[in-house]
Amino acid sequence: MNKQYVVGVDVGGQTTKIGVVDARGDVLTQTVIRSDIYGSDADAYIKALAAAIKACIAEVQLEDQIRGVGVGAPNGNYYTGEVAYAPNLAWAAGQAVKFADMLTAQLDGIPVSLTNDANAAAVGEMTYGAARGMKNFIMITLGTGVGSGIVIDGKVVYGHDGFAGELGHTNVVRHNGRVCGCGRQGCLEAYCSAIGVARTAREWLEMSDEPSVLRHVEKITSKDVYEAAKEGDKLALKVFDYTGTLLGTAFSDFIAFSAPEAIVLFGGLARSKEFLLEPMQKAMNENVLAIWKDKVSIVFSSLKESDAAILGASALAWEL
Amino acid sequence: MNKQYVVGVDVGGQTTKIGVVDARGDVLTQTVIRSDIYGSDADAYIKALAAAIKACIAEVQLEDQIRGVGVGAPNGNYYTGEVAYAPNLAWAAGQAVKFADMLTAQLDGIPVSLTNDANAAAVGEMTYGAARGMKNFIMITLGTGVGSGIVIDGKVVYGHDGFAGELGHTNVVRHNGRVCGCGRQGCLEAYCSAIGVARTAREWLEMSDEPSVLRHVEKITSKDVYEAAKEGDKLALKVFDYTGTLLGTAFSDFIAFSAPEAIVLFGGLARSKEFLLEPMQKAMNENVLAIWKDKVSIVFSSLKESDAAILGASALAWEL
Repeated sequence: MNKQYVVGVDVGGQTTKIGVVDARGDVLTQTVIRSDIYGSDADAYIKALAAAIKACIAEVQLEDQIRGVGVGAPNGNYYTGEVAYAPNLAWAAGQAVKFADMLTAQLDGIPVSLTNDANAAAVGEMTYGAARGMKNFIMITLGTGVGSGIVIDGKVVYGHDGFAGELGHTNVVRHNGRVCGCGRQGCLEAYCSAIGVARTAREWLEMSDEPSVLRHVEKITSKDVYEAAKEGDKLALKVFDYTGTLLGTAFSDFIAFSAPEAIVLFGGLARSKEFLLEPMQKAMNENVLAIWKDKVSIVFSSLKESDAAILGASALAWEL
Repeated sequence: MNKQYVVGVDVGGQTTKIGVVDARGDVLTQTVIRSDIYGSDADAYIKALAAAIKACIAEVQLEDQIRGVGVGAPNGNYYTGEVAYAPNLAWAAGQAVKFADMLTAQLDGIPVSLTNDANAAAVGEMTYGAARGMKNFIMITLGTGVGSGIVIDGKVVYGHDGFAGELGHTNVVRHNGRVCGCGRQGCLEAYCSAIGVARTAREWLEMSDEPSVLRHVEKITSKDVYEAAKEGDKLALKVFDYTGTLLGTAFSDFIAFSAPEAIVLFGGLARSKEFLLEPMQKAMNENVLAIWKDKVSIVFSSLKESDAAILGASALAWEL
């Protein structure tokens, strides 16, 4: 019998989301387990994960109809099935964990496909979302960090070693750039992630006397900046303008690489679409080579946010 | 009978080179015609080209054994077979010429495959040269301009519209960058092409009093800078150091895109390997994300330079 269902697993630093998904992208059932209570014991974590997956499958009585499990995980490697040296996962911070093989063993042989979260998001958008029907696009995830998944001719680019698509760590400020989490300076992620936006606001408040509602906020987050912008706060609006301009400028170089038909945006910060889209489009079209001017669209994820991570991961399993 | 030979055509601004090539990459015979004596009459040029191709084939008596013709041409589009708005080709400067279709018609149906010169060079290196056996690499051609051909999973990346791989027009100097031939500022090509190297030398001579043998040269070319560096001229050596550093820095961002196993260099300026390689490697490894440090090699084309352009173009025809 043709197996018509897949499981999506989204591994995050605190929690892991699990869902059973059908071919139309409906999440039939879902559950959550903790990722952060196993210390460095990868074995214990994967056993708990397998138990939760089995319970999910049992709940919808699809025991024999699961084609495979797709996993999106930080530093997940598509080729090796490993999660290796992921700083935010205690059980994979100091070692390379053979995640896919270990999970398959616990699931009595159900095949497991694994990649990083941004690549999973790209497959999700292509299968169920805003990139349906597109063969060439670049997915940019704007969350705590900036991730990317590059699709060329309908396939995610994994590169020589499985780690391709680290566009959050391309350079946008060449001199005296901000120090990034990766240890280098001037990366896109240091400016255009949720953390980057908050950092821009804090820096600008310190450097000027400009009035802003943000002056009364302790420990500013990107959400505070968004709320302030909604109220018309000029400094907050300028922060988004700056962020959008840096993103659009970066996109113009990405386009020179793979000539995509669209840039697809997803993630918490992408919710600030109303403030980001215009400066992004302007900067992209001003900086791109003439042959691509006004030809590449910027679109936003159309997946329901609570389901998106599971859907993205699950979509990987259709290719198994 | 299995057709065992291909024709390679390298279209340049002044001349067009034509050769018949076997599966081992030996050029059996070759000839040259002018590209620049037909004004805007694309039809006349393509008739002359077809006649020269037929004469070549007749010379080695392979009339029925030609699998196809591969063409490398500026602004050549793989998908459409057109050469469109190529500023250096009078017959294609103001129009889109259906090059592949027109040439096939003149050649009694022999199929024609066409792409730009840098993509052709990438296929050539993969088929006969330094990238044989590689599935993921980036070809950078350092000539009058800077071109690129990106290979992922053994295939050239053409992108949504056939124009992917314009890495010479990604930004390397964000503020007050040099004006590039494309009309924008700060492009890699404006610094790291043969013209860019000569420009750097001239600028530095003007801006300083530093002694240099180049002060006695009129209309400095990149070749003059190379000769001066060979004599140990300090300013010339610094020009190559600067050029190599910019290239290596740019490579570190290219790697974040497609995670290639190598960067392959070709073109007139690549002959300055002895002065470029060290600063290139140093800058690349200093600026690349930690997972790729000391993992991506920089290699130089291994094709005989007089044959390389024909071989690159001819290699396209094997895929027909």
